[in-house]
Formats: sequence, C-alpha cells, structure tokens
Amino acid sequence: MQVTLQTGERINTMYGDQIKIIQSNEVFSFSIDAVLLAHFIEPRKGGRGLTVDLGTGNGAIALFIAHKVVGQIVGVEIQARLADMATRSVKLNKLDDKITIINDDMRNIFSNVQPGKAEMVVANPPYFRIDSQQTVLKENPYYAIARHELKADLALVTQTANKLLKNKGHFYMVHRPDRLFEILAALQRAHLYPKRLQFIYPKPASEANMVLIDAIKDGDSTGARILPPLTIHEKDGQYQQAILDIYQGRQ
Amino acid sequence: MQVTLQTGERINTMYGDQIKIIQSNEVFSFSIDAVLLAHFIEPRKGGRGLTVDLGTGNGAIALFIAHKVVGQIVGVEIQARLADMATRSVKLNKLDDKITIINDDMRNIFSNVQPGKAEMVVANPPYFRIDSQQTVLKENPYYAIARHELKADLALVTQTANKLLKNKGHFYMVHRPDRLFEILAALQRAHLYPKRLQFIYPKPASEANMVLIDAIKDGDSTGARILPPLTIHEKDGQYQQAILDIYQGRQ
Repeated sequence: MQVTLQTGERINTMYGDQIKIIQSNEVFSFSIDAVLLAHFIEPRKGGRGLTVDLGTGNGAIALFIAHKVVGQIVGVEIQARLADMATRSVKLNKLDDKITIINDDMRNIFSNVQPGKAEMVVANPPYFRIDSQQTVLKENPYYAIARHELKADLALVTQTANKLLKNKGHFYMVHRPDRLFEILAALQRAHLYPKRLQFIYPKPASEANMVLIDAIKDGDSTGARILPPLTIHEKDGQYQQAILDIYQGRQ
Repeated sequence: MQVTLQTGERINTMYGDQIKIIQSNEVFSFSIDAVLLAHFIEPRKGGRGLTVDLGTGNGAIALFIAHKVVGQIVGVEIQARLADMATRSVKLNKLDDKITIINDDMRNIFSNVQPGKAEMVVANPPYFRIDSQQTVLKENPYYAIARHELKADLALVTQTANKLLKNKGHFYMVHRPDRLFEILAALQRAHLYPKRLQFIYPKPASEANMVLIDAIKDGDSTGARILPPLTIHEKDGQYQQAILDIYQGRQ
C-alpha cells in the first residue's frame, strides 16, 4: 500500500517493522509515553469489544495496540493535520478494516459511538494545565494543543471515557505524576477506579516522571496494584534492556 | 536509666545503639514500616514545632525521629499495655523531656493538644478494613487493634491530623498501596494534599506493598513528587544495602 507523504513527513517503524507511522517535526510526534501505555494495556477476552482512543494524534496508540486487540478501534483527533496523518498511517499498515480515525472534538464522539459501547478507552492526553505554563503561547499550535489542556482537560477526558465505557470496561491513561492527586480525583468523579498503576522513572534514583493508569468503570475503590517500577535509562543514559525490548515488540 | 521489663519483654536497638525500644511478642512490635516512615520524615526548620504521633504503639516512630526534631513529640496510644511500654522506652532513652506518651483514644487528643498547634502529625495506622479480613477475630486483641481499623480508621486519622495541624503543617503516613484510592480520597476530604509519595517494593520486579505519604494541610493539589522506588530485598532475599543503612542510621 502506497500513501503520499507531505513535505517534511517521514515514516518511523515500531516492533521491528511491524508498524509504520507517519511523523513530522512540524506536529507532535509520538513519544515513549505512547509506547509504554500501549505496552501496559491488557485487553480482556482478546479485546473483542470496541476500543476508543481519545485524542489519538497521529494514531500512535491505536496503531501500537492493533496487533493485540481483535475488535474495532476508533481514534478521535481534533486536529485535522494529525487526523490526516493518522488516516494515512492506518492505510499504510493495511489496518483500514480495524482502525477508524475521526477528525472531531472528542465531545462529538457520540455522533459515531453510542454511550456504553466501549470495552476499552485509552488516552495520552495533554499533560499541562493552561495556567501552569506561559510557554504555551510560544509553541506552535500543534504542540500547544497536544501538550496543554486547551481543547481537552482531565475532566473532559475522564467524563468522556466514563460515558463511552460499558460497566466494568477499562480506561487506560498515561499522565504526569505531579498531577496524581487531580487525576485520581477526576477518575473518582467519573466513577473510574484505578486497578493498576505503574510509575515510570527516567533513571535509577530519579523521581517518577510518568504514571500509567488502568481504571475500571464502577470498579472497587480498594485493591489497587502498584506494578514494579519501570526505569527508562541506565545510569549512563543508555536505554534499559526492558525498554528496548518493548520498542522491538519482544516483551 | 534503669526501667523494669515485664515478663516476655526484650530491648531492641536502632541506629547502632542510639535508640533502645522495649518490645514483646505478646503485642504488636514495630516493623520496617515504622523504620521507613521515620526515615522518610523531613522536619522543616529543624522540627522546632510540635509533632504528634497518632497511634504511637510502643513509641517506635516517636523514638526514631527524636534525634531529628528539636521540638516536643506527643504520642497517643489507646492500648494501655503499649502506652506503658512506650513510656518506659522513653525513660530508657532519657527522652522524658522531649517525648510525652498519652494513653487515650486519639479522639481525645484535644484534651492535651490545642487544635492547629502541630507542625507535624505522623501515623502508622491500622492497614486493614474491618470487613476485609475475618482473621481479625482470631488474632489476639493487641494485634487486631494494631492491624485492623477497629479503633481508628483512615477517616479518623486524617481528620484528626487536619485538626491538629497548623496551616501548611505536614502529615506523614505509611499505608498499603492497595488502598491508595481510599487514602487519597480521605486526605482530600481532610484538606491534606500529598506532596511526596514513595512506593516500597519488597523485591525487584515485585509490586509495591507499602506507600509513604507526605501531605500538606491546605497545600496545592498539583505538584506531587513520586520519589525513587525503594526496594527492601535483593533477589536472593538479602536486605538491600540502602535498607541496612537506614536501620544503622547511616542514611
């Protein structure tokens, strides 16, 4: 399958050459956050139900989990440029039958997906509060929207996830641990109960800079599991073997 | 200073021989949880203000932090037998001028300490909900009260801490991560905002079985720090060097 690349676009690969993804420096590229979230997701019953990726960007997580779910994946992305890249990446991987990209505000997802129909909702949402960094004004708009809560915030993402999910469906999210308190409060308000958390540390003896969350709609408020810590780099800056294995699809 | 040991009691030492503590197998002995919480506590301004230890047991945390705070420490313990052991350990360490043990329900602490007067409140509370383990009925009452929320639960401990603390005072607690969601909700209801969390893992590649929390009264809901993971044992079951150093007071 041939797709047309726009000026400045390139194709990166994941899991060996299993997945190809169109990227561009002009817009927000996928980062290790998306790779680790995709790895963290554990579809139940083979993932036969519907999965929705809220704010799919260039489709990274949808593409990365395509091999481990049997059912359909819908990715919604508000930015036309990114949604277009995602659509072309889906074609490039011959995943048109499995992944549908919708270019819209996630508020309008219910035009396409009925409430209560999703088995899994996944999200790699903007991390920063609008009030938290004035730098937002200096960034190009693609980066600004991907990084700052300009179009979607924690409340919107968690409430949308709740409305999309079946009872006992799973919500998976990667976020920043410095907002853990707000995150857990938002999850609670959306009746999403964390079942598994994993903290990601950039280096040995460093503080965590990422948290992976697996929450269950209308689950139990007790019984959370904190998975073993995952450290990205060795002390010398090299990637840890476990991380290389995840990128190569060996884990 | 000589103190009288009761039948079955022994004296254990910490930080080399710096601290002596009376223990007995008949009642709940201090565990690594108390040692790690004491190590985790970072008094501000040299700890000149008042510290209250809620449910001090045999006084372990009060004794372990005595060397790092300048101010007074009040430990409250509902079990007369344990409060008596704590009082004798305080004498044994010649810390009568610094540590006061009160044998009472923490609900009555305000007979001794005015609301809003504490700089720090620390707690190693019972971990288990009463409904969670029927084994509570089989345990001897000393263990049952120390381990199960029979006399004090998360709501009581956090609300009492809030009432004791000055604005911006610190609440330190060790608890079980499987109750993280309930813990953070209880903290939020008590206007205590986690600033630092540290997860403790029993072995490499194991899930966390302990969490240390440093929360600030009327603090900010953003900006939580997740400290580097702390692992207790090596793969072969030996203590990690960092843990031995904490016990020896070298860290």
